[in-house]
Amino acid sequence: MAAAGAAGAFAAGRATADPGAGPVASRAAAYDFRGPHQAGIVTPAQDRLHFAAFDVTTDSREELVTLLQAWTVAAERMTKGHGAGEIGPVEGSLDLPPDDTGEAIGLPASGLTITFGFGPGLFRDEQGRDRFGLAERQPEALQTLPHFPADNLDPARSYGDLCIQACADDPQVAVHAIRNLVRIGFGTVAVRWSQLGFGRTSSTSTSQDTPRNLFGFKDGTANVKAEEGDVLEQHVWVGEGDDARGGWLAGGSYLVTRRINMTIEVWDRQPLGDQEAFVGRTKGSGAPLSGGEEFSSPDFEMPGRSGPIIAADAHVRVVHPEQHGGAKMLRRGYNFVDGSDALGGLNAGLFFIAYVRDPRTGFIPIQNAMAKSDALMEYLKVTGSALFAVPPGVQPGEWVGQSLFA
Amino acid sequence: MAAAGAAGAFAAGRATADPGAGPVASRAAAYDFRGPHQAGIVTPAQDRLHFAAFDVTTDSREELVTLLQAWTVAAERMTKGHGAGEIGPVEGSLDLPPDDTGEAIGLPASGLTITFGFGPGLFRDEQGRDRFGLAERQPEALQTLPHFPADNLDPARSYGDLCIQACADDPQVAVHAIRNLVRIGFGTVAVRWSQLGFGRTSSTSTSQDTPRNLFGFKDGTANVKAEEGDVLEQHVWVGEGDDARGGWLAGGSYLVTRRINMTIEVWDRQPLGDQEAFVGRTKGSGAPLSGGEEFSSPDFEMPGRSGPIIAADAHVRVVHPEQHGGAKMLRRGYNFVDGSDALGGLNAGLFFIAYVRDPRTGFIPIQNAMAKSDALMEYLKVTGSALFAVPPGVQPGEWVGQSLFA
Repeated sequence: MAAAGAAGAFAAGRATADPGAGPVASRAAAYDFRGPHQAGIVTPAQDRLHFAAFDVTTDSREELVTLLQAWTVAAERMTKGHGAGEIGPVEGSLDLPPDDTGEAIGLPASGLTITFGFGPGLFRDEQGRDRFGLAERQPEALQTLPHFPADNLDPARSYGDLCIQACADDPQVAVHAIRNLVRIGFGTVAVRWSQLGFGRTSSTSTSQDTPRNLFGFKDGTANVKAEEGDVLEQHVWVGEGDDARGGWLAGGSYLVTRRINMTIEVWDRQPLGDQEAFVGRTKGSGAPLSGGEEFSSPDFEMPGRSGPIIAADAHVRVVHPEQHGGAKMLRRGYNFVDGSDALGGLNAGLFFIAYVRDPRTGFIPIQNAMAKSDALMEYLKVTGSALFAVPPGVQPGEWVGQSLFA
Repeated sequence: MAAAGAAGAFAAGRATADPGAGPVASRAAAYDFRGPHQAGIVTPAQDRLHFAAFDVTTDSREELVTLLQAWTVAAERMTKGHGAGEIGPVEGSLDLPPDDTGEAIGLPASGLTITFGFGPGLFRDEQGRDRFGLAERQPEALQTLPHFPADNLDPARSYGDLCIQACADDPQVAVHAIRNLVRIGFGTVAVRWSQLGFGRTSSTSTSQDTPRNLFGFKDGTANVKAEEGDVLEQHVWVGEGDDARGGWLAGGSYLVTRRINMTIEVWDRQPLGDQEAFVGRTKGSGAPLSGGEEFSSPDFEMPGRSGPIIAADAHVRVVHPEQHGGAKMLRRGYNFVDGSDALGGLNAGLFFIAYVRDPRTGFIPIQNAMAKSDALMEYLKVTGSALFAVPPGVQPGEWVGQSLFA
């Protein structure tokens, strides 16, 4: 079912989007909110992101459920290009606040997807309290990520009980979606942190070009793609029997976010050859330093002047599936610039997003290896981190996360 | 000359852009960097912004001039869709840092404009020092803006010795431009603050639709437009005889930036009728409450239930040119969202940009009136503020700001 679902979701996307379309032509696309998996995972990565993490401020399970139901209705409406509420931004009584905030009036759906996730705190809060009677259903893999070497986390940019990822080809549409969901959640949730991403750094479909990160390199060349149904089954979607407590999560996924500041001013002063050696690929075409073109497999044995031509600490080698028992993740990150830092540089980097079937095998070992021996780490500082369980898709008549509360 | 120049600059823009094009079709546009006025003022407002303000960290006039010359070369190249330097991001020696950072490889010019400005600190620093021998040429109107009621300025988001406004239809192109100009300035300038804007809130051409701000209202309906040559002469471009010390600024303008946080969560709880009363326009069409359509003139005399139908404190009335001796400004602001605030809401609002011939008559009185009696002020908090003198356009063979140093 899940495999057919993935293919079906993709076909639906392509049916409304122009096949092979770049960001311009895809602007009018609308993706189905409902389906076997949530949209916004294998959906061809849209250009812009607004991501928000929330603290739940109520102890009432009923209020939480009511919010998830209201969010489902609003999210489905907005992904169709409608207002957040039935009445609309300007059509209602002058005596009432509108049920849509209005800044997206006249804008098309713009490929909007809205993806919901549940953090560890929903199951057990920082004081260990089981506020919502969900502790018994907390998947074993849903734990606060361990502290990695070189993590420099800001708690105000990390963690969260709930999350919403809004992706669209128009940032005003993504911002409008998050803003209206925040509005609907008033009194039940509060924004813990939020992040805008201005440019996608991953392709999630073979129909897309590989974009560039702020190191100037192509990123996500070897990403898991929507077209690879088997790989998605194996590495992205949670299976029925994966977790005794997490059966409700089958067909869902785990969402890792990492706010990775890049010291771009220092990077920019490195020789081109060093930059390429750190990454293990050429900056122009993105081909591995062992030769070929962008999508050629790296040859880790090929000798160079001293040692292998792809160095032992080259990024492409350290994180390669070959080093990690074949582990793969579906990456969906975005470039960000959030003003400037105290040193006269830009507060900029990569808001890393990855979807994996199990973070214990699909993310944590790779991150440990990277933190320990990746040459790029000298130019990175991780300032935010979070893990969420992303429930399966919302079927007709359901609300998001319903399987958890059933 | 200036009038012909304004019309000429616009014609050049329209010649490469598709006439009447929306943001999608205009993506491939390239605007001339050189001309009688700097581009990025009357240029049809692009969709995305990256703005940076700098402190000059040298006391050497020579180093400052060298930087302006280098910035001119790089800016002209990038607005053509080329790399920042002659060699390119990947074409040079492996032993040297590239002269372009590479994240815009393959991207078109995307309508990029780069506009430079000089702050009061360039003429006399905070200690009153004339570091660069320019004090005698400081225009009288170029002073730190006065403190306005309700200003809540963060010095780390305000002021600056220099500024660069980069506008483009692709945010990666705008960010790339600022990032490379920052790189070139290393050792001479340091970023004091920078601001991303994700969506334009003004039209600067009759060919553009009026966009919406985060209050959900159309903004900038009555803006000065590129097509209004006479109005530009009167209200935007500095004239030859405007200022005895500022003759070098003729053909330039003054650039006001104000980072205006909106308390959108509170706004969203106001009844539609109240929102419209505060603005003085309908939320849907943008027509004045006195009737007609978006571009109808407001009738400030028309009676309502109690008092005039456009209230005494309605935004449209308080800032209307009629109240200020006909004063008009060319607005060019952008919506922003910078993460979240401590109250569980979004740190969001309007990055206000206006170009005026003289801030003493074209901005300060209007801002004072607004701060004193505009109903919208209850939902606004100004967290950043700056004023810059924008030198005239760069003619062939010249570098930006050359007239100041001549």
